[in-house]
Amino acid sequence: MQPICGATTPSPTSAAVISLMGSIADVGRDATRGGYSRPVYSTPELDLRSWFVEAAQRRSLDVETDRNGIIWAWWDVPDHERTGAVVTGSHLDSVPGGGAYDGPLGVASSLAAIDVLRERGFAPSRPIAIAVFPEEEGSRFGVACLGSRLFTGAIAPARALNLRDAEGSTFADVLRANGKDPDTVGVDHDGLKRIGLFLELHVEQGRGLVDLDASVGVASSILGHGRWRISVSGQGNHAGTTLMADRRDPVVAAARAVVAVRDIALAHESARATVGRLQPVPGGTNVIASRVDFWLDVRHPDDAVTAAVVERIHAAARTVAAEEGCTVELVEESFSATVHFDTTIAAGLSAATGGAPLLPTGAGHDAGVLSAHVPTGMLFVRNPTGVSHSPEELCEDDDARTGAVALADTLAAYAG
Amino acid sequence: MQPICGATTPSPTSAAVISLMGSIADVGRDATRGGYSRPVYSTPELDLRSWFVEAAQRRSLDVETDRNGIIWAWWDVPDHERTGAVVTGSHLDSVPGGGAYDGPLGVASSLAAIDVLRERGFAPSRPIAIAVFPEEEGSRFGVACLGSRLFTGAIAPARALNLRDAEGSTFADVLRANGKDPDTVGVDHDGLKRIGLFLELHVEQGRGLVDLDASVGVASSILGHGRWRISVSGQGNHAGTTLMADRRDPVVAAARAVVAVRDIALAHESARATVGRLQPVPGGTNVIASRVDFWLDVRHPDDAVTAAVVERIHAAARTVAAEEGCTVELVEESFSATVHFDTTIAAGLSAATGGAPLLPTGAGHDAGVLSAHVPTGMLFVRNPTGVSHSPEELCEDDDARTGAVALADTLAAYAG
Repeated sequence: MQPICGATTPSPTSAAVISLMGSIADVGRDATRGGYSRPVYSTPELDLRSWFVEAAQRRSLDVETDRNGIIWAWWDVPDHERTGAVVTGSHLDSVPGGGAYDGPLGVASSLAAIDVLRERGFAPSRPIAIAVFPEEEGSRFGVACLGSRLFTGAIAPARALNLRDAEGSTFADVLRANGKDPDTVGVDHDGLKRIGLFLELHVEQGRGLVDLDASVGVASSILGHGRWRISVSGQGNHAGTTLMADRRDPVVAAARAVVAVRDIALAHESARATVGRLQPVPGGTNVIASRVDFWLDVRHPDDAVTAAVVERIHAAARTVAAEEGCTVELVEESFSATVHFDTTIAAGLSAATGGAPLLPTGAGHDAGVLSAHVPTGMLFVRNPTGVSHSPEELCEDDDARTGAVALADTLAAYAG
Repeated sequence: MQPICGATTPSPTSAAVISLMGSIADVGRDATRGGYSRPVYSTPELDLRSWFVEAAQRRSLDVETDRNGIIWAWWDVPDHERTGAVVTGSHLDSVPGGGAYDGPLGVASSLAAIDVLRERGFAPSRPIAIAVFPEEEGSRFGVACLGSRLFTGAIAPARALNLRDAEGSTFADVLRANGKDPDTVGVDHDGLKRIGLFLELHVEQGRGLVDLDASVGVASSILGHGRWRISVSGQGNHAGTTLMADRRDPVVAAARAVVAVRDIALAHESARATVGRLQPVPGGTNVIASRVDFWLDVRHPDDAVTAAVVERIHAAARTVAAEEGCTVELVEESFSATVHFDTTIAAGLSAATGGAPLLPTGAGHDAGVLSAHVPTGMLFVRNPTGVSHSPEELCEDDDARTGAVALADTLAAYAG
């Protein structure tokens, strides 16, 4: 497999992706966790949204923010004669302490791809747009791809509006505080009709392209995945005065459940199960907790296996909780079935990018949500560390430029 | 054993303890955790400090706040002729989601005891004072009894000033924000010299008095206890793209260590070991954490056993961390040796209160810190639930009144 360099030699213009990424390198740095914390509708994420609007307007794109908070930047606004827009884009929010590239690389590459096409004198025969989706990570309100789920009707507005962040604010509260009308969120049939093809470029979040020795790849599938909240309730009490034998300590029960999560995942080939967020309540050092909330992320190519893994974890949690005198509640917060991208589009993307290899991904994306409604494909750009959702996430400048050119080539192939 | 009713029939004046507790019943309620969250120098704790100052001034006590943030309310200010003050009091800060009585009951009972003594026409021959100590719980800055430790020199000012709260503010920052001079904190030899006897009344935090069928008891000892921070470091990564076999997940390692904490405590008779506070970093649902910080509270009557339990926990944490590809760091945040209260004073308190039974406690108190420097004793008031550091902590009105009268009797016995 040859490294992918795009259909043409990378032009100087492709360096725009580097300068665009550089211009936001100080937005939302997290001094405590390292990396970036850019939760949706936080100051850093709002700053990035403004940055995108300005960058798009500087490129004479027509910018609009729709009722679901998705920003659209149009090169030729669609009308009844010009339909089937080729839309690209990604997201600007991050996980807590995330890397620089997860999301913003796709947005910056989209802007740079426009520059490359303009430099080539490309005249699109179909509208082209860049879209920026809010709350892709679900880091603030718990449901990943919240913007694209609302847009496509994959989540009911009433449920979305009642989601709460860690401070207890509902999504509706936060929309109102940001001058948006919560009553208008929800499925956007007209918006969907405008899209002929959706393409998302994203930094790869594993080592697939490192192992393939390729700068750019094409997504074949997205692993099915979901999130579940598990609450273990016991008896809050004093850490000094309560004998070990008298305790009903939910921290001990939750700890045993966390170990079971890993053991059950290991017992199912290709399964991944993670606990990355866990909160004892009230959370004092000299206090036996009364409750522990923890969140479970489970993924497997076969959705039936995902369901079986979650059920086994639930059963194991019930068992250890009962042994510790505690009780367990499990609530599904979101589930996304495994996505197999359209093979014709995937082959087309590979051809347009000079033979980029196909590879699956374990990470969810707005492209996965959109794929149930519009023709969809994804490009990945190599991540030399293979690490993501961490400050160690990386993308080399040469690969980023190659990715921007590959995206330009793809847009040209489909909008030409 | 007969219920303790004080040397005299409870006077109507003792009801002041009920009305005083009622007047602060809405300060610092925690809607999320239940109970009260009144961390030191938070708005609720500052409100309680103001409430105390007003209540003391209404009783014509001379109020001063010293350089360590301890409030003193004097009935007869000591001078070179009037020394050996009998000081009582407690604290107003709480653990997160704590009960109503832990701390405030001792302060309200002290005020009510003054009322009872005044009603009796008591004329003290030694000064009497009520003291309110800041950060008894260590809930904000991690070191319990921080005020009394500074006052007695049990903690170096430089170490105290650099302690940080969960938001990253140092104790020095918070003192400055509250108009206090950080450069003046530290051992107060003159303040110590004024104290002839320190008496703390506290709600009991276990079931000792329930089992003894007594309203009031006298402390015989405080279990040695300490706090240690354990940090487990692994490899932060993406929850979807990272195979189970490739992980170095500190949440799994920490969970196994938490189970070991409980198992090791169970293997040492009379030991208590608790993890009530645990934070994965960065803490995202779809993120394998890079680090987990958790806090260990260990207590045992024999300080050598406490040290051995901590060392065994450290060793177990190192072992499981190594098995998970992680590393461990353990830092002692505070340690208080087992306190055996002066038996003569304990016998005197029992006599002054009509035969209150002696009992040990597993909870730390400012009285434990002061006992190394001045003659010290403690009174406990029955807690029918036996639960503390929880909204379920309780004190019946009749017991609270009996406690206030017992405290008045004790003050009369020592300051008469």
